[in-house]
Amino acid sequence: MLAPSWILIKGGRVVNDDCSQLADVYIENGVVQAVGLHLQLGSPTGLQVIDASNKLVLPGGIDTHTHMKFPFMGTQSKDDFYQGTKAALAGGTTMIIDFAIPQKGCSLIEAYETWRSWADPKVCCDYALHVAVTWWSDKVKEEMKILAEERGVNSFKMFMAYKDLYMVGDRELYAAFFQCKQIGAIAQVHAENGDLIAEGAKKMLALGITGPEGHELCRPEEVEAEATLRAITIANSVNCPLYVVHVMSKSAATVIANARREGKVVFGEPIAASLGTDGTHYWHKEWHHAAGHVMGPPLRPDPSTPDYLMKLLANDDLTVTGTDNCTFDTCQKALGKDDFTKIPNGVNGVEDRMSVLWEKGVHGGKMDENRFVAVTSTNAAKIFNLYPRKGRIAVDSDADIVIWDPKATRTISAKTHHQAINFNIFEGMVCHGVPVVTILRGKVVYEGGAFHVAAGDGKYIPRKPFPEYIYKLIKQRDQVCQPVPVVRKPYDGDVISAKPSGGSK
Amino acid sequence: MLAPSWILIKGGRVVNDDCSQLADVYIENGVVQAVGLHLQLGSPTGLQVIDASNKLVLPGGIDTHTHMKFPFMGTQSKDDFYQGTKAALAGGTTMIIDFAIPQKGCSLIEAYETWRSWADPKVCCDYALHVAVTWWSDKVKEEMKILAEERGVNSFKMFMAYKDLYMVGDRELYAAFFQCKQIGAIAQVHAENGDLIAEGAKKMLALGITGPEGHELCRPEEVEAEATLRAITIANSVNCPLYVVHVMSKSAATVIANARREGKVVFGEPIAASLGTDGTHYWHKEWHHAAGHVMGPPLRPDPSTPDYLMKLLANDDLTVTGTDNCTFDTCQKALGKDDFTKIPNGVNGVEDRMSVLWEKGVHGGKMDENRFVAVTSTNAAKIFNLYPRKGRIAVDSDADIVIWDPKATRTISAKTHHQAINFNIFEGMVCHGVPVVTILRGKVVYEGGAFHVAAGDGKYIPRKPFPEYIYKLIKQRDQVCQPVPVVRKPYDGDVISAKPSGGSK
Amino acid sequence: MLAPSWILIKGGRVVNDDCSQLADVYIENGVVQAVGLHLQLGSPTGLQVIDASNKLVLPGGIDTHTHMKFPFMGTQSKDDFYQGTKAALAGGTTMIIDFAIPQKGCSLIEAYETWRSWADPKVCCDYALHVAVTWWSDKVKEEMKILAEERGVNSFKMFMAYKDLYMVGDRELYAAFFQCKQIGAIAQVHAENGDLIAEGAKKMLALGITGPEGHELCRPEEVEAEATLRAITIANSVNCPLYVVHVMSKSAATVIANARREGKVVFGEPIAASLGTDGTHYWHKEWHHAAGHVMGPPLRPDPSTPDYLMKLLANDDLTVTGTDNCTFDTCQKALGKDDFTKIPNGVNGVEDRMSVLWEKGVHGGKMDENRFVAVTSTNAAKIFNLYPRKGRIAVDSDADIVIWDPKATRTISAKTHHQAINFNIFEGMVCHGVPVVTILRGKVVYEGGAFHVAAGDGKYIPRKPFPEYIYKLIKQRDQVCQPVPVVRKPYDGDVISAKPSGGSK
Amino acid sequence: MLAPSWILIKGGRVVNDDCSQLADVYIENGVVQAVGLHLQLGSPTGLQVIDASNKLVLPGGIDTHTHMKFPFMGTQSKDDFYQGTKAALAGGTTMIIDFAIPQKGCSLIEAYETWRSWADPKVCCDYALHVAVTWWSDKVKEEMKILAEERGVNSFKMFMAYKDLYMVGDRELYAAFFQCKQIGAIAQVHAENGDLIAEGAKKMLALGITGPEGHELCRPEEVEAEATLRAITIANSVNCPLYVVHVMSKSAATVIANARREGKVVFGEPIAASLGTDGTHYWHKEWHHAAGHVMGPPLRPDPSTPDYLMKLLANDDLTVTGTDNCTFDTCQKALGKDDFTKIPNGVNGVEDRMSVLWEKGVHGGKMDENRFVAVTSTNAAKIFNLYPRKGRIAVDSDADIVIWDPKATRTISAKTHHQAINFNIFEGMVCHGVPVVTILRGKVVYEGGAFHVAAGDGKYIPRKPFPEYIYKLIKQRDQVCQPVPVVRKPYDGDVISAKPSGGSK
Repeated sequence: MLAPSWILIKGGRVVNDDCSQLADVYIENGVVQAVGLHLQLGSPTGLQVIDASNKLVLPGGIDTHTHMKFPFMGTQSKDDFYQGTKAALAGGTTMIIDFAIPQKGCSLIEAYETWRSWADPKVCCDYALHVAVTWWSDKVKEEMKILAEERGVNSFKMFMAYKDLYMVGDRELYAAFFQCKQIGAIAQVHAENGDLIAEGAKKMLALGITGPEGHELCRPEEVEAEATLRAITIANSVNCPLYVVHVMSKSAATVIANARREGKVVFGEPIAASLGTDGTHYWHKEWHHAAGHVMGPPLRPDPSTPDYLMKLLANDDLTVTGTDNCTFDTCQKALGKDDFTKIPNGVNGVEDRMSVLWEKGVHGGKMDENRFVAVTSTNAAKIFNLYPRKGRIAVDSDADIVIWDPKATRTISAKTHHQAINFNIFEGMVCHGVPVVTILRGKVVYEGGAFHVAAGDGKYIPRKPFPEYIYKLIKQRDQVCQPVPVVRKPYDGDVISAKPSGGSK
Repeated sequence: MLAPSWILIKGGRVVNDDCSQLADVYIENGVVQAVGLHLQLGSPTGLQVIDASNKLVLPGGIDTHTHMKFPFMGTQSKDDFYQGTKAALAGGTTMIIDFAIPQKGCSLIEAYETWRSWADPKVCCDYALHVAVTWWSDKVKEEMKILAEERGVNSFKMFMAYKDLYMVGDRELYAAFFQCKQIGAIAQVHAENGDLIAEGAKKMLALGITGPEGHELCRPEEVEAEATLRAITIANSVNCPLYVVHVMSKSAATVIANARREGKVVFGEPIAASLGTDGTHYWHKEWHHAAGHVMGPPLRPDPSTPDYLMKLLANDDLTVTGTDNCTFDTCQKALGKDDFTKIPNGVNGVEDRMSVLWEKGVHGGKMDENRFVAVTSTNAAKIFNLYPRKGRIAVDSDADIVIWDPKATRTISAKTHHQAINFNIFEGMVCHGVPVVTILRGKVVYEGGAFHVAAGDGKYIPRKPFPEYIYKLIKQRDQVCQPVPVVRKPYDGDVISAKPSGGSK
Repeated sequence: MLAPSWILIKGGRVVNDDCSQLADVYIENGVVQAVGLHLQLGSPTGLQVIDASNKLVLPGGIDTHTHMKFPFMGTQSKDDFYQGTKAALAGGTTMIIDFAIPQKGCSLIEAYETWRSWADPKVCCDYALHVAVTWWSDKVKEEMKILAEERGVNSFKMFMAYKDLYMVGDRELYAAFFQCKQIGAIAQVHAENGDLIAEGAKKMLALGITGPEGHELCRPEEVEAEATLRAITIANSVNCPLYVVHVMSKSAATVIANARREGKVVFGEPIAASLGTDGTHYWHKEWHHAAGHVMGPPLRPDPSTPDYLMKLLANDDLTVTGTDNCTFDTCQKALGKDDFTKIPNGVNGVEDRMSVLWEKGVHGGKMDENRFVAVTSTNAAKIFNLYPRKGRIAVDSDADIVIWDPKATRTISAKTHHQAINFNIFEGMVCHGVPVVTILRGKVVYEGGAFHVAAGDGKYIPRKPFPEYIYKLIKQRDQVCQPVPVVRKPYDGDVISAKPSGGSK
Repeated sequence: MLAPSWILIKGGRVVNDDCSQLADVYIENGVVQAVGLHLQLGSPTGLQVIDASNKLVLPGGIDTHTHMKFPFMGTQSKDDFYQGTKAALAGGTTMIIDFAIPQKGCSLIEAYETWRSWADPKVCCDYALHVAVTWWSDKVKEEMKILAEERGVNSFKMFMAYKDLYMVGDRELYAAFFQCKQIGAIAQVHAENGDLIAEGAKKMLALGITGPEGHELCRPEEVEAEATLRAITIANSVNCPLYVVHVMSKSAATVIANARREGKVVFGEPIAASLGTDGTHYWHKEWHHAAGHVMGPPLRPDPSTPDYLMKLLANDDLTVTGTDNCTFDTCQKALGKDDFTKIPNGVNGVEDRMSVLWEKGVHGGKMDENRFVAVTSTNAAKIFNLYPRKGRIAVDSDADIVIWDPKATRTISAKTHHQAINFNIFEGMVCHGVPVVTILRGKVVYEGGAFHVAAGDGKYIPRKPFPEYIYKLIKQRDQVCQPVPVVRKPYDGDVISAKPSGGSK
C-alpha cells in the first residue's frame, strides 16, 4: 500500500493538455486537492514540499501497450511486472496497460485472472489490462461481457497476424467488433495481413534470407496498411470504435488519418520505437544489433518514418503513444539466430517513451508541451475511460505526477537503464527532458535516481465500459444514421408484363 | 464464315489511340492492307467503296466484360450470344470477352467448353473468354495452365463477393494470383468484401428494408474500396498483374489510381453503367425502375461518381471499359420483389457503351477521340494480348472497324435498342456519336440500322499468355527487385553472453 | 454596465471541450466561482437559481468573424453593433470578433478607434477587433505594433481578393506576416486570387451573365484553394501562424488539412453559411433569393461541401467557426440587380451559428457536444489568447454561459430572427438545439425569447500578443530549426584548375 | 547537309511507344520507307546494312530542355550548339529544344533570330526553339503571334523566379497564357516563387550561410509546389495548356499529378538530374562538388525524390523528360565561391539522359522499353507537334534512330563524356543501356564512339501551332464548358419591398 501523504509541489509550471500555468499543486490522500498560485496551506504536519521551480509538473505518463512477463515464442519477456513497472516510474510513467492473452480455445477470464495474479503482487505503478480475443465462440462472447461489466476491461485486442497462434479471420473480427460495440468496449487490432506474412516468410527463407532483415522483407508496410484499412472498414460496418495498436509505417498511419478525416471513429497508437528509431537497423552487420530491433510489425526501413509519424501524432491524426514493451535479451533473441521467424519479437520502451517523445516531439519543434501531455497520458485516459481521474492535474484527480526538467538531458543506454535487458534500441540517444520526481497517487516513488516503492504498490485500475469520449458519438450515429425503407406501391406484375417485351423479335 | 471482301473506306478521319489522320483504308481478306491519303487501287472487281467523309474511322470496340446467356440467381441472362453480339455490332463493338464460370468444385475446362458450345454457333462478333476460378485445388491449378497454354485463355477472374456461391478467400486468392503469374495470365477480381455484404444484407432485411435500395445500403462503397486494396496488396506480393473488373465507386477508383502511382501493375475497368448513370435510381419510387438498376457492385448514390470515373479514365488512372452486360427483364427482376437479395444482378450496356462514352467523355470535353479509342479498344487489346491485330487500324490488323458520325445524335431507349430486355438504364440519354457502319474482319455487318450477319459469323479469338504490354515489366522486376541476404559473421554467443546481463537484479 | 449578480445554475450537464459532467455552476461578480455536484451555498440574498435539469450548460459562443455596421460596396451592413450583438445573444453567442478595416492609405489605429466608437456604445455582448492590413508602409508596420502592444489586437487580416479595394500583393503579404510574427500576432487571410476573380468577372459579364450565378462562376473554388496554399507557403517561410478566414470549399479545406498534417501552423475557419447551406442557390430562379446568398468567397455549388467541411471540423482539420455575418437586405442587394459584381457581399449567421452547428454537427452524428464547444468557443479563445477566461466553464472563468436544450427544436426564419434583414440563408431549417438562457459575465441577458440587456452592456476585450497556444511551438521552431552552414575548406582554385579542362576541344 | 543514304537496319527489335516488334527498318532519303520482318530489297547500290541483332532500335531521343551557349549570371554556358549537340548524339538524342530568352524590354523575335544565328551553323542534331516571355507589352503579344505563325515556335516559357531578371508577375502570366491559347501555343513555366526565393536568399546570407547548401535552403520544395499550383490555376482559368519545365520535387510532381487527375491539361517534365541524383550533394564537404550540382530549381535533399519522380513518370503523371542542360565548369562555378547566389545555375544532362533513364527506369524495373520511348521522344513529339515525323519509327517518319544495347553498360564520367565541362553530376554511375549507333535523318552520325557529323548538319525544325494532341481537347472544352446565364424574371422591387423589412426596430 502506498502510505497517505501530504505533498505540496511549489513553483512549477503545471501542464495539462489544454494549457499550462504557473501553479502550486497540493496533494492529500493520493488525490490533488488544489491547483493554484501561492496556495496557502496551514502547514499540516508531515507536509512534504517539493520545489518545482523551472520545472514542469505533468500528469504521469500512461503507457497504453506493454507485455510484461509475456510467455511468447518459446520464452518469456524479460521485464516482469516488477522490473518493468519500476522502469516505467523511472521514466515518468505511472500507469501501464498490459495485455492478458489467452491461447486459442482458452478462457479469456482465466487469462485475465492469470495476468492479475502475475501483476498484482509485483506492480510498482498502476495498471490495467486489455484482453485479447484469439478465437471465437459463444463462450468468448459471453466472457467479453463479463470482463466488461465485472472486471473493468473495456478494450479487447484482436490479432490479424501471428497465423495459427493468435490470428483471427475476418468473420471473427466482425463478430468481435460487434460484441465490443454491444458491451461498450473499444476494439483493438494488431493490423497486419498474417497470411501474406506467412507466405512472405517462406519466400525469404527459400531465398536464403535467414537474418533479421528477412523479418521486415516478409512483411513490408503495405501488409500493415492493407490490414489497417480492412479493420477500419469492418469496424465501421458495425459502428464500433477501433484502436490500432503499434502504428509502425507511414502508409498505415495515412490510412488511419484519412479514415478519421472521413469521420471514422478510429485511433492510432504509434509507439516509442516507431517514433524514435527505424528499420534500417535490420540490415546492421552485427546480428545481435539487428535482432535486437525485431518486433512485429517491424520498424520500417524508410528513414523518414519516425518524423512522419510524429507529425501525424502532433496533428491528432494519431492519438496516443504506447511502447509494445516486450523485452528479450540477446540470448533470448538468439533463438532465431538461424531463422528470423524464431527471433522473439519485442523491444524496450516503457522507460524511455516520455523522453524520446519529448526529444523528438517537443524539443524537435513538432509539438508543444500540452500536446505532449495529451499524447502521453490525457488521450489514453479519455479513450480508456480513466479521465479525468488519470491524465489531468486537477482537483479530484489522482496525484499521478511527474516533475520534468525540460532543459536537462540524459543519454539513453542499456548500461544505465532500469529494464531487464542488455540492449536498448535507443542506445546513445541524447534526450532533453528528464523526469526528476515521479509521484504515484500522492507518494514520491522515484526521485533523483532512487526508488521509494515496493512490489505491489501499484494498483489494478478497473475501467468502465462506454467511455463518453468515444461512445457519445457512436450512440448518436446509431440513432440518426439508420436507413429507412423507400415507400413504394407493391410490385404490380400485370402492369409491367403488359409492356412490350423488348427481348422477343 | 464471313465472306472475303474488298473494301475501300474513303475520305474519313482514321483515329487510332496515338493520333488521327485523314486517310483512306483499304481492306482485303478481312485485314487492313493500306492506310493512306488517296490510295490508288486498281479498281478490283467487287470493290465496295464506303464514303466516310466527315466521319471518323475507328477500331471496332472491344467490350471486356459481358455475361451472355449466363445462368445466375435462379434464371439466365436474357441476351444470349446471338442477340447480345448483334446488339454489340449495332453499337460499334466488334469483340466481346465473356466469362466462363464453373460452379464450385467443377472443372474450369468443362466450363470453358460449355461456354464455347453456347457461343460458337451463335456469335455475330468476335469473342474471347475469361475463365473464373471459384474454388481452389491442384486440379484447378493444372486446368488454369492448360487453358492458358492450349485454349487461348490468358485471364482468370476471382470473386471476392457472392459468398458461398463464387467467393474465394484470401488464401485462395493468393494461390490463384501466384498461378496466374506462373502461366503468364492476368488475374482479375470482382472486388467487394463478401462477408461484409452478407452481414449487411441481413441487417437491412432486419430493418425491414427489402427494396432495391437495400442492395446498395448493404454494400456501401467502402466495401468495394477495401477489397480493391486487399486484392492489389496480395497481387503485388507475388508480382502478379491485376485487373479490377467493374470499378463502380470513387473510392475504389482512387485506390487503383494511387496504387498505379506507386508503381503497382493494376488496371481498372469502369463500365458503361458506372460512367453513364448512378445509384440514386435505387431510391426511385417505382420498384421495377429501381430494380432494373440492380447490379453488383451497385451503382453509387453519390451523383458525382460518373464524372469522377470518367476523369480518371481520361487520365489513365483507369484503363479500359467494359459493360458487365448481364440483362434481365422486369419479370426476371421480379424474383426479388420481396427481397432485394433475390433480384438478379445485372444491367445492359454492350450496345450503348461506345455512345455513352463518346457523349460523356468526348463530347463532354473530358477526353479526345484518341483516348476514346484507347479506352474502348486499344488498351483492352494490349492487356489481353490481341494488339496490334485488334485495337488498331494499321496494315496487317484485323479490319474491325466502325464508321462513326460524331455530329449525329441518337436517343437511347428500350423501345429501339437491340438487346433482349424491356428496360435500359440509359433510357432517354441523347448521345452524340453514332455508329453508322460496323465492319467485322472486312465485312460490313451493320449499316444504317440493318444487319448483314448470321449466327456464328463471329470467331473465338485465342489469346497467348505473357502479353508483352504487361509482362515485360513484371519480368524485369522479378530480376532486379529480388532481395539478398545481409552478409554477417556467424552469431557469436560467447561474445554476447560475455556482456553483463542487464536482466539480473 | 452589467449589474453584479449571484447565480446558481442547478442540475445541468456542464460541457467543456474535454469532457462533460453533471454539475452545478455558481457565479459571483461575473465570474464562475464553483463547479461541482450539489454545491452547498449559504443562500446568499438575491441568489438567482436557474434550473438546468435535462439541459446542457455550455460556454457562450464566440463568433470569430463578423462585420457589423460595415461600410461596404456603396452601402452599409444592416446589422449594427446593437442589433447584431442582440441577435448573437439570442443564439447563444456571448462574444464576437469584428474587423476594423481601414481604406488603403489610411491609419490602422484610426480605423480601430472608429470601430471602437461605433461598437462601444452599442454592443450587447463582449467583443474584440481584428484589424485589417489593406496596404503597406512603415507606418502600417509601426501601427500594427502599437495595436498589439497597447490596444489588445493580436490578429491582423490581409485580403488576397477585392482587387484595388483591399487586396494586397504577395510581397505585402510577406511583409505583413513577418511583422505579425515579430509582434506575436496571428496573421489572417481572406484567401482568394483577386486577379483571377477580376478577370473572371469581366469574362462572365462579356458572356452576358449578370445574375448572381456569375458571382460564383467568376471565382470557382480552385481560386480559393490556390490562394490558400500560397498564403500558407508564404506564412510558413517566416514561421508565422496563419488563420484562414471563411473556408468555403472542399479543396481549400483540404489544402489546410494537408498543411496541418505536414506540421504547418495554420487554422481554418469555416462559417455557419458554408457548413449549413450551399451555392446551388445562386442558380435559383428568383433573383432576390439567389442574391441573398452572395458573399465572398461564394458558397459552392457542390452540394457535398457542407458535409465535407463539417467532417473536417469534427476532425480538427478545421479549428473554429465564425459567420462572416455581414447582412444586407433585399433592397441593398438590388444594387447589383443588373450586374452581380455590384451585389453587396454578405450573409447572416451570428444568430444561427450555434444552432446550425448543433443540428448538422452534433445531432447529425458528426461531432459530440464537447467538440461542439471546442469549435464554437474554446478553440477561438485559445487562438486569440482569451483562454481560459473565455471558452471554458471553470473556476475563475468569465461567466459567459448558454443553457442549451438539445432536445428542443426551432425553425429558422427571417420572420422570427432578431437580425436586421428580411432574409435568412437558413430559412426553414429545423434545428435541434435551442439556447434557452444566455448569461453574459454573470448576468442573464436573454431568456425564453426576452432580452435583459442594454446597448453598451458588452465590453471590449483586449487580447495579449504571443498566445501560448500558438507561440510555444513557433518559438521552439525558431530555436531548433535554424539551418547552419556546412564547414568547408576555402575554395582552392589551383587544385581545381589543375584538373584537365573537359571543355577544351 | 546530311548526304542521302540507303540504310537497312537488320534483325533488331523495333521499339515504339505502343509496342515492340522484331523487324528490319529500311531508310531512304532520310525517311523510313519500310518496317517489317525480312524486308526484301533489291540490294540498291550503296546500301549500308547495320546489324542490330540483339539490339533495340529506338526513335532518337528528343531533349525538350537545353541551354547551349546561354549568356547567364555573368558568364555563358560552356556547351555551345556544336559541342552540346555532338554530346547529344553520343547519348542517343537526335533533337533538342533550346530556349531563346530575350532580356526584359527586348524583342522576342530578335532573341529568336539571335539564337538561330548561334545554332544554325553549329548544330549537329536537329533542334527547335522555345521562346521566353520575360516581360509583357502589346509588342510582346504581337511577336508571340508572329513567332507562332511564321517561325515555327509553338511554345513559350515564362519564369516565375529569377526576380528582376526574367520573372514575370501573375498578371503577366495570365496575359501570356491567354495569348498562348489564342495562337495555339503551349505555355511553359519555370515554377518557383521568386519573391520567396529572394527573401530566403537574404535570410541565408544573414545567417552566414554562403555555400551551395544555401541555394537549396532558400528555396525549399514548397516554393516550387506553390508556384506550380498557381500556374496551373491561372492556366486553367483561360483553358490554356500548361507545361511545367524541370519538375524537381515530390511535392511539385504531386501537384501536377493531382491536377491531371482532375482533368487539367498540364504536363510535367522531370529532367535527367532530378531523376538521377539528389540534393544531398549540396552538403558535400568539397565546395566544387556541391557547387557543381547547383541549378534552379535545386535538386532536393530528400533522397527518395528520384525514385518518386520516376514512378510518376512511368505512370504518366509526368509526361516527358528534358535535361535543362546548362553547363558551367568549376572555374565558372567559382564566381559564387563566397556567395551561393552568384554560382551560375546549371548542370549537364544532354548526353546522359537516355542512359540514366534506362538505368533507373527500365533496368530498375519501373517502366518498360515502350514507356521509355514515350518519355524520351514520342510524348515530346506529340506535345510540340512533331509527331509522327519525330518520336516514332514508322513509314514516312524521319529516320532519327538510335541502336541501343540494353545489355551493355557504361560508366558515366567527366573524363570520358563529350560535354564541355570537367564535372558530371552522374559521375561514376554505371548504366545499363548504351547507344551504339545514332542515325540522324538517315545518316549514321555516331557509331562506336566515333562521330561522322559536321557543324550545321542538324536542322531547325519549325513546329506548327495548335498541336492536335493537346488542342482537340482544349477546343472541345471551349465549346461545351461555357456557362450560360440563368433565365429569370426581371427584378421586381415592389414585390420585394412589400415584404416586411426585418431591419426596422
